[in-house]
Amino acid sequence: MWFIENYDERASLGLKVRKKLHEEQSPFQKVEVYETEFFGNLLTLDGLVMLTQKDEFVYHEMITHMPLCTLKNPERVLVVGGGDGGAIREILKHPSIKEAVLCEIDERVVRVCQKYFPEVSCKLEDPKVKMHFEDGFKFLNQYENYFDLIITDSSDPVGPGVALFKEDYYRLVKKALKPDGIMVSQSESPWYFEDTMNSMTTAMSSVFKHVETYIALVTLYPSGFWTITAASDAHSLHNFDEKRSAEISKTCKYYNPELHKGALALPNFVKNIVKNK
Amino acid sequence: MWFIENYDERASLGLKVRKKLHEEQSPFQKVEVYETEFFGNLLTLDGLVMLTQKDEFVYHEMITHMPLCTLKNPERVLVVGGGDGGAIREILKHPSIKEAVLCEIDERVVRVCQKYFPEVSCKLEDPKVKMHFEDGFKFLNQYENYFDLIITDSSDPVGPGVALFKEDYYRLVKKALKPDGIMVSQSESPWYFEDTMNSMTTAMSSVFKHVETYIALVTLYPSGFWTITAASDAHSLHNFDEKRSAEISKTCKYYNPELHKGALALPNFVKNIVKNK
Repeated sequence: MWFIENYDERASLGLKVRKKLHEEQSPFQKVEVYETEFFGNLLTLDGLVMLTQKDEFVYHEMITHMPLCTLKNPERVLVVGGGDGGAIREILKHPSIKEAVLCEIDERVVRVCQKYFPEVSCKLEDPKVKMHFEDGFKFLNQYENYFDLIITDSSDPVGPGVALFKEDYYRLVKKALKPDGIMVSQSESPWYFEDTMNSMTTAMSSVFKHVETYIALVTLYPSGFWTITAASDAHSLHNFDEKRSAEISKTCKYYNPELHKGALALPNFVKNIVKNK
Repeated sequence: MWFIENYDERASLGLKVRKKLHEEQSPFQKVEVYETEFFGNLLTLDGLVMLTQKDEFVYHEMITHMPLCTLKNPERVLVVGGGDGGAIREILKHPSIKEAVLCEIDERVVRVCQKYFPEVSCKLEDPKVKMHFEDGFKFLNQYENYFDLIITDSSDPVGPGVALFKEDYYRLVKKALKPDGIMVSQSESPWYFEDTMNSMTTAMSSVFKHVETYIALVTLYPSGFWTITAASDAHSLHNFDEKRSAEISKTCKYYNPELHKGALALPNFVKNIVKNK
């Protein structure tokens, strides 16, 4: 039995599956969990790979520690999406954190991950964590000058995630951030989503002074070449705290200070895609 | 119609195909060419993806320019394997090159690529290039203290490529290299070929002083996270000629000086795989 994700009739990924562990239609999307042969449990939303137990560390370490090691003293972080809890788990490794807020539109994603991905969702019940099951757009509107970091850990710009890739959203994010805050958002693959990458980075550049795309090798996302984009009026990810980065890296399977710099080095063809910034 | 490559019953890659352009059984392997929907023409050997027109630049730029921009004045280069000609094309971009030798065991790969991948094989008829259709192991034995760079551009360690991943081969390579020469070899994926990476780098370390693994994001190789390993008694890839690198980068779609440094930054889990070095 194979799980197959089709990349718009161009390419496809197959994962050998032992059995399907869960399937439901939530109010927002189809939520499924498979037990794979090689990658442990697999979560899919509307048939797209979100994470596996074996490779989830790449995405979660890279979407959190790059901005957190750049901020001077991050205390309050918001994760929009990220119902699996992996970003929250990584955020809480930073001792300066006082409040980590998760705003996930689909509570079912959280509950399913708490059952099938306990090592990913393990920090969601931490006293520093507040969970809200709401639309990220509406939730953000309540805040002004509050967060040090806002992470958009969303699915692709189809389904519930579509609004999170547009300029209006980035303006709301900016309002909810402190003036020296950072936002990061997963920004798709240069091989299969060139247009999305280009429009996202262009939109971010019209809202923020610094916009920087970096690489996270999420092997089970389309092409394996995944990107995350950070935006800020005050910070460049190039100027990070190497000492704190080295400390955090001791708990990581992917992130380290050399890789922090290395992830920011883009191939020429990717520079061309994000050059509007 | 889909071409499917199965990664040992763990995962698989599918490529949407318009038609099969060529199929033959050479004396060494099955050589096939497909016209894909998104990646242009695709070459497979024994059913494994070797290159496509759309993504071949990544591998060919990374296996050549990293060592060539590290060497002071590279004049003589040997490519073992590499019958598609892509490495040769990139090598000839360096003005110091006087002689580029290709030793490909299977002449049919060269002839098929000359027909279906003309923009890859385009430099094989250059006067600086000498082609030999021989076993790389035997061919190397004729040389001593001759090449500045030897590139092992082989298929996986199954079929004709198997001997090119062992210590005996690295000793022959060392003898054929000048004392300050560099060897590079494609070194597989940390996700699917952990053991091969570990045994290769261990074997190289018993022969050469510096052994350095770096990353090339070859999206259609298993996991998309591909590695290349360089070995030398005299050179570390960290000490490269940034000016020459910037010059070469103007002709590249992937390689540039920042990426030269970035490619050498390995995630923690990959450092652990190659730590015997």
